[in-house]
Order: sequence, then C-alpha cells, then structure tokens
Amino acid sequence: MTTGNGSTTAQLITKHRPTLDRALDAIRTREFWTPHPEHPKAYGEGAPEEGKAAFDALRGSRFEVPGQPVSGEWTATEVSPYGLEMGISYPRTDEGAIDALLPVMSGGLPGWRQAGPEGRAAVCLEILARISARTHEFAQAVMHTSGQAFMMAFQAGGPHAQDRGMEAVAYAYAEQTRTPERAVWEKPQGKRDPLRVTKEFTAAGRGIALLIGCNTFPTWNGFPGFFASLATGNAVLVKPHPRAVLPLALTVRIAREVLAEAGFAADLVALAAEAEGDGIAKNLATRPEIKVIDYTGGSAFGEWLEANARQAQVHTEKSGVNTVLLDSTDDYAGMLSNLAFSLSLYSGQMCTTPQNLLIPAGGVATDAGHKSYDEVVADLGAAVSKLLGDDARANALLGAIVGDQVRERLESASSLGEVALPSRAVENPEFPDATVRTPAIVKLDAAKPEAEAGYLAECFGPVSFAVAVGSTEDALTLLRRTLREKGAMTVAAYTTSAEVERQVEEVCFDESAQLSLNLTGGVYVNQTAGFSDFHGSGGNPAANCTLCDGAFVAGRFRVVEVRRMAAS
Amino acid sequence: MTTGNGSTTAQLITKHRPTLDRALDAIRTREFWTPHPEHPKAYGEGAPEEGKAAFDALRGSRFEVPGQPVSGEWTATEVSPYGLEMGISYPRTDEGAIDALLPVMSGGLPGWRQAGPEGRAAVCLEILARISARTHEFAQAVMHTSGQAFMMAFQAGGPHAQDRGMEAVAYAYAEQTRTPERAVWEKPQGKRDPLRVTKEFTAAGRGIALLIGCNTFPTWNGFPGFFASLATGNAVLVKPHPRAVLPLALTVRIAREVLAEAGFAADLVALAAEAEGDGIAKNLATRPEIKVIDYTGGSAFGEWLEANARQAQVHTEKSGVNTVLLDSTDDYAGMLSNLAFSLSLYSGQMCTTPQNLLIPAGGVATDAGHKSYDEVVADLGAAVSKLLGDDARANALLGAIVGDQVRERLESASSLGEVALPSRAVENPEFPDATVRTPAIVKLDAAKPEAEAGYLAECFGPVSFAVAVGSTEDALTLLRRTLREKGAMTVAAYTTSAEVERQVEEVCFDESAQLSLNLTGGVYVNQTAGFSDFHGSGGNPAANCTLCDGAFVAGRFRVVEVRRMAAS
Repeated sequence: MTTGNGSTTAQLITKHRPTLDRALDAIRTREFWTPHPEHPKAYGEGAPEEGKAAFDALRGSRFEVPGQPVSGEWTATEVSPYGLEMGISYPRTDEGAIDALLPVMSGGLPGWRQAGPEGRAAVCLEILARISARTHEFAQAVMHTSGQAFMMAFQAGGPHAQDRGMEAVAYAYAEQTRTPERAVWEKPQGKRDPLRVTKEFTAAGRGIALLIGCNTFPTWNGFPGFFASLATGNAVLVKPHPRAVLPLALTVRIAREVLAEAGFAADLVALAAEAEGDGIAKNLATRPEIKVIDYTGGSAFGEWLEANARQAQVHTEKSGVNTVLLDSTDDYAGMLSNLAFSLSLYSGQMCTTPQNLLIPAGGVATDAGHKSYDEVVADLGAAVSKLLGDDARANALLGAIVGDQVRERLESASSLGEVALPSRAVENPEFPDATVRTPAIVKLDAAKPEAEAGYLAECFGPVSFAVAVGSTEDALTLLRRTLREKGAMTVAAYTTSAEVERQVEEVCFDESAQLSLNLTGGVYVNQTAGFSDFHGSGGNPAANCTLCDGAFVAGRFRVVEVRRMAAS
Repeated sequence: MTTGNGSTTAQLITKHRPTLDRALDAIRTREFWTPHPEHPKAYGEGAPEEGKAAFDALRGSRFEVPGQPVSGEWTATEVSPYGLEMGISYPRTDEGAIDALLPVMSGGLPGWRQAGPEGRAAVCLEILARISARTHEFAQAVMHTSGQAFMMAFQAGGPHAQDRGMEAVAYAYAEQTRTPERAVWEKPQGKRDPLRVTKEFTAAGRGIALLIGCNTFPTWNGFPGFFASLATGNAVLVKPHPRAVLPLALTVRIAREVLAEAGFAADLVALAAEAEGDGIAKNLATRPEIKVIDYTGGSAFGEWLEANARQAQVHTEKSGVNTVLLDSTDDYAGMLSNLAFSLSLYSGQMCTTPQNLLIPAGGVATDAGHKSYDEVVADLGAAVSKLLGDDARANALLGAIVGDQVRERLESASSLGEVALPSRAVENPEFPDATVRTPAIVKLDAAKPEAEAGYLAECFGPVSFAVAVGSTEDALTLLRRTLREKGAMTVAAYTTSAEVERQVEEVCFDESAQLSLNLTGGVYVNQTAGFSDFHGSGGNPAANCTLCDGAFVAGRFRVVEVRRMAAS
C-alpha cells in the first residue's frame, strides 16, 4: 500500500495550513479574499514569455502522462478557435485502457484515506500552488482551447479557477472535520458503572470520481469537482472535452507529480483522453467503480447522467435561460453600459450570460426620463456598439467563437424575430483565422406564442432577446416560469421600486435562483467570485449543485465509525 | 402571507436556544448527551396512566386534523400486533384531497422562509418538547402499531426518536448558518476606489417534503427526515405506513398546533393517510411539488423512488444484510450474551439486527479454549434460550411479530438449512392474541452454492444464519461481497488479533459500513445513539443517507444570494 511519505506530507501541511485557515475563514465570512493575483504582471518578470514558450513547446508533440497505464494509441482533437495549430496528442483511453486503469486507481485509495483530511488538503493546495506558478502557461492553454481572449483566459482560467479549486478544498476539509476523529461516549447507568464506548470516525472517499470537462471553461468549471473529490479521499479520472484537453491534462500531470512526491499513488489522478466520437464518458459514467461524477455541459447529457449513473453521486451544471428584468432605473447610462459589457464578454459564451431581457412594452422609468421599449432596445444596442466600436477593444472583450455550433446559432437567430442589433464580424489582426463576432439583440413579443421558441430555449452564444412584456407583473410571471421550466444560473433586475425588488426576490427564493440587483458599475451579473458568491443555486433545472457549498462536498465521502467498549 | 408572530417566535428562541446550543455541541463532540430522559418514571407521577388514557381515548374514534383540507372519507388501517382493537379512523387522502392540499401547503412557505434558521429551529424544538411531554402516549401508539415491547416502544419510540429529531434540527441549523446572512465584499482596484458589493444570503427550502413512514419504527425513523425538512424551510407531508399511522398523526397534529400558535401556516405540516392498497406514495413521490423525500422500508420501493422521483432529493433507508464476523474472543461468555441480546431484541425486526454470523468452519479461539463451529452455534443458541427462558422476560424483550410476512418468513426459514436453534412461540398473558416468537438460528455452509439464497438475501425478522466459512480470510471476502452487493446497516466483529481488526476496518472503510468491535457489555450492535453514532453510512446499498450528518440536511434547502452595488 502506498501510504504517503509522512514527513513530506507534514511539510506540506506546515506550508499550506495558513492558507487553508484563511480560505476557511473566507467561506465563513464571504468577504473578498484571494491568494491568486489577478494581474499578469504579478507572476514575475519573464513569466508571460516563459508561459508562452512552455505552451508552444507542447504544441505539435505527444503529451506523456508518465506512469499511467495507456493503450499505446494517441489522439489529437484540439482546434484553437484562434486558428493556431495545436497538434498535441494525448494517450487515447480505450476500453482496454480503462479496464487496466481503474483497478490501479483504486489501489491508491487506502493510502490516500490514511492521509486524513488535513494531509489531503495540503497535497491539494500544493497542486494548486504549482498550477498557480504556471498560470501563464495555463492562460495560453485555456485561450487556445476555449477561444477566450487572453486576459479572460488568464484571469478566469488562472487565478479565478484556482480560487474555485481552493474553495472546494476548504469546504471538503471543513465537511470532513465536522465529526471528530475520536470520541469517548459515557452513558450514566444510575448506580451502576457508566457504559463507556470509544468511537473512531474516519472520512472515507467513495472510490473513483469522474470529471467530465467542458470546452469553454475547462479549469474554472473543472477545478471545483476535481479538488472536491480528491480532497475527500477519492481518486479522480479526468475526461476532458476533446476540444479542451490541455488545461486539464496539465492539471493531471501536476497532480500526479505532487502525489508521487508526497509518497501517494500517482494513479490517484489519471487522464482519459478520447478521439472525437469515442464517447467514452457514457461508458465510464456507469461503471460500478465510478462513485462520483462532476459534469459541465449541455442539458441532454447532464440529464442522462442524472438518470443513468445511479451508482454515483452526480453533480451537473447544465444549461439554463438567464433573465434580466428591467422595471426602472435611476442610472440609465450605468445600466446600459453594465448590460452591454455582460452581453459582450466572451461573446456571450458563458453559462451566466443574460439571454432574455424582459422589458415592459410600455417602457421603463429612468433618471433620463421615460424610455419606450424601442428606445431601451436601441439604446442598449448603441451601448454595445460603442463598447465594441474599437476592434482592438472588441477583440480583447469578445475572444473567439468556440465552435461552428455557436456561429450557426448566431447566424440563425435572425429567424427568431426582428434583429435590433445585428452581429458584426471583427477582424483579429494577430489571429486572422479567428471567428470573432459581436452580440446580436433580437426583439421578441411575449404576447405572440411563437416567441416562446426563442425565449424559452437556451441560445448559447452571442444572442440575446429583448422580450416585450405587458408589464413588470407579466415579467415576474415569465421569470418564474422560465426558472421553473428551464432554470437559470443568473437573474438580474433593475428597479427603483422596493416593492418590485421584494417581488423579484420572492420569485428567486421560491425558484432558487441567484439574483443581482441594479448592477451599474464594475460588477457584472455573469461573474462570480470564489469564496464569496455562489455560482448557480443547485435548486433549479440549470444545475443540481452550486459552487461551492456543503452539499457540493458532503456526498463525496462517508464517515465510517468504529466503536469499541472502553474500560469503565 | 402568514409570516409568523414575531414575539411568539422570539419567546420560543429564548426558551430553546440553550438546548439548541447544547445539541450543536453534542454533534461536534459526539459525546453522550440527551435532553430526553430514558426512564418512564422521569415523566412524572401519573404520566403512564395519563398516556395510556389518552391513547385509549383515541381508539375507536375519528382522528381529526383540524383545518387540513380533507376528502371527507375516513380510513382505519391499523392492527395492533398485540391484538388490541385500534379502530382509529384518519382522513383518507385521495387524489382530490392531494390536489387541494399541496397548494395550501405551498402557501405557507414564504412565511416559514422568513422565520429564518433560528426561528424554525425554535419552532421545531417546541414541537419536540410537546412530543416529549406526551412520551407515554407515544409509547402506547408505537407499541400497538409496531409490536415493540413496552419498554422499547417507550425508549426507542420516545426519547431516542426525539434525540434523532433534535439532532436533525441541530444539523439543519448548523448547515443553514454556515453562510452569513449578509456580507460586504470589497475588492481592491489598485489606485481606483474598491468595488463594493453587499450580499444577502437566504436559506430557502426546496418546497414540499414527503415523509414515507415505516411500520416498525414510525417515530425513530420518521423524526429525522420530518425535522430536517421542516427546519430547513420546507413544508412536510406525512404519509405514514397504513399499519403505523397514529405515532405520526399525533406528530402532525402537535406540529400544526405549534406552527399556528407561532403565527405560521398550520398546513406547513399535513397528514396523508390512505386505505390499504391505495398506494398514494407512488403518486405523491413524483408530483412536481414534492422536492424532498424521506423513506424507510423495503429495497424495492426505495430503489423505485431513487430511480423515479427525479424531481426530489430522495433519502432512503432500505434493507441490507448485517454481518457479524467471529474470529476470536477473549470474552466468550460476554460475546455470546451480547449477541443473544442483539438477536432477540424486538424479535430481530430491526434494520440493524445481525443476520449472518460468519464462523470459521475450523472454529474460533476463545478465553474458554478453542470452540468448534458447532460448539459456537450451540453455545449461542443456549445463550439465546437462557436469555429468553423466562416468559415474562422474553415478552419484555421480544415484543410481538409485526405482521404475517415476518411470521411466514420465520416459518419458512427451516427450508434454508439445518435449524440449530428453533423458534419458540411465547405466550403473552396480557395480550393473548399477540404473536411472540424467539429467534431461530439456521446453519449454512458457505462452501455450498445453494446457501447463498440464505445469506445473500435480507431475511427481516427473527432469523439469523450461522454461516460456516473456510477461514477468517474467507469471512472478510464474504463480508466485502455482502456489503457491496446487499449493503448493511451494521457490521460487528469479534477478534483478539490486531491484524484482523485492521482488515475488518479496511473492508468497512472501503465499502462504507459502520463497525462495532468486540461488543460484550451493555452496548449492542443494533443500537445507535443520537448525537453520537451514525445510523447507517449512506455509502452502501442499504441506505443512501446516514442519520445524521451534513449531507442528510444539505440538499433540503438552497442558499439564494442577492447582491447589490454598495456605495463606495
């Protein structure tokens, strides 16, 4: 049994315990905190160039995962949305490789269990520290798989993702240590001696966890499940999206190095790369050895997992329809610029991007006077156009369209209603092959039944709907229906009325949706901060879990009690 | 909206906060604690008679649930295992009644949400306090529905069940208050003003919870889910087992009284009684309004719920096969008497009763010399016979057989193997119609394939199998297989070998089972204590949850965040 190198683990605990304590404090107070600097310059002189060079060195080569049982076949499936030649081959995980791999992964579990919650947390934080040191390399990897613009790939794929991973480690540690390691239970028996029982409580992982990665946020959406499962004593098999393998493959390799250095089985973490069309996730997800699953992606496969992977704890982030309710505002310009940014960021390719803007047909009251529905839509379009008027700035905000499906969806959006703001193709001088598009705004009239095909379906990408509703009351009704039937990762509302605020809140409480009110400055509805904001609620059809809370980690392990009579 | 009477709720908080704090401390330390006295005399002079009189007054009458929407039909389905005439009619809940009831229940949710975690905990503790004050009445109700002997019905159905309910309230409170009610998030922006966001976090229940009660432990198994759901802001619809309605019907009526007095909607708790064969649980469980389910009972329906009630958080305690591994002992007599008690208590009609006693065919080493397999089986049979030799004591331990299925299972057990200890019918002078049976022990040889039909199926009731295994190593292998395939609520082992102890522990860690080692005194494998022991692990096929931990409560509510820009 690989039981870990006690002195190495002790050193890691000494090194990372203060950070863990600070993270535990942050999830309790939910005040701002991060140990991961957001600015690229904070990573040292030369770091950008070194990161880029490391990334370039990986391109056109075989990505080895030393020591992991492999099939001998290789697969290269990544296509940079920026048109950069990737050509990175990964070990292809076929059925035979899986059969060989899973028992080896399970073999590491007893030693990992013995490390205890603190030892596992320290190993996880060391993995995160090494990832953090390579943030520039990860930024390139995320940029050229997701199509995010560099700064977003750097921040969301780097420090923000690392925050989410560390947050999961903190929750995992807190959850596992709610029960003491041992207790003496002494029950009075009247005049007789008391009954005395010693009880030992061990947090035991469930087995092998499967992480099914996504194309758009491989690290940000992948790290929470990865670290939550690992920190609670599971092995983790990482199955990246075929178009976004590298960020998670790097993660796997770093994790294996840290585990081995600390004396644990490197195979506690393994990579399952596949060729396009292999579809190994479906087979893996129902294997009896797989006890925990984390998935980010479309609703159809997410619902399939929930229905079929019955042997596992299944955590899904699927798709939803995000709503902004516009009732009134005392900062019309601030509202417009805030919304324009939210619609534009990463071309709306975020699960948190607003889709439906519910605007009373009779218009809204603003500090700039009453604005008709048409005026609001036109002004919002103008705000978007102004924000993205400069191509350099547009490229820096929009990034690239991640794939053909999104482009096709954008192109067919005009069939759904009158286009109030057409999408514009933007040239990217650095990457001429990148598909860069500004967001489109399409008008829909909620009074018309055919409009439902637009506003009651997720339209992932740079399309939003300006939905004319009869009144704010109608908007609340539609918001409730949308949340109940389609779910949402985010809800936003603009109102100067305390009563409307209360009503929107009640709908969000009833239907379990996260609400941002009257955002006008530099905080956007589609962004959440680790240690403070909840990402999704886990209580509506968009996701069955939230990042991050007790429920996200509590099912990943069980507490096994061993009791013995004690001498009285 | 019924938003609660602030001053009443405040009074309840003042009254119960010290108890809540003590309970929170107990679940952290897991040391012995209970606020519910175990001795019948502790409830005051005259309490036994008053409880009995209250119970007798209910018999032969209609059990009204004042204010609850009902169908107008009545149903009486209870049959005392002691032969006492019950004749209690309950409002029959047909489809029409459900359609009327669910919206009314939902109507109370916003007010209940506003009460907050502390207010809800206080209301729940007041309900428990009133139940506690009527423990003698509950004891009669549990005795004459489950067939438990009086003392067990009193203790397990009274104080121990109340402990489990309070434990759930404590976990619910702790879980909901891990996130603060509000936070100010202030992110530095270099030379610019920091971003400041105020965040409010509200614990919001999921909706209506459904409690599906069981026949044998209506309160002990029912209270955890009932109070966990109520304390986390849900309404609770109680669907008792048709043979054990009264204990939960009393609970519903008390809860409604307390809720109404505190200014909340009484219909936050409601009773769904059915006629034999109505099978309303299946329809209720898949209604979209039902968001949480707690179920105790057979595996078939439990697995059906897990597969089909996809809209709900489903908590199940099903059936398993509990194992005792006998390797060696330094207290042979103590082991035998401890096991004899465990096999006899409530005629083995506990989900925690040992079923398979794995004994090496070559015998075991003991402080009384080496004992062959046959000797161990004979000595255990003798210990049971001695324990139950006196009819009065036998009646006090065994209680009555709860129903025909258990009796038939016992009668057919002799077909499975050689009967080492035959079951004996015991006369009950007070209740001549009661079916009272001592436990049977049947020999099985693990080397024979046909023996699997015995030891790899749950045989609920007073039957256990003395399974001859080749060696302790074989026993460990069979234990692992049994846990993986059938699950278990309990595992026990007797050994003087530190190595065997370690091996049994490893199996239990790997397969997530709760282990008791070398119990010889007054602590029994089939008993667990609230606030200290975990009941089941939630990690093997016997149950998907444990009583009680964070996971048991964490999915019953979601935290809804509302964020606003703050003045900088």
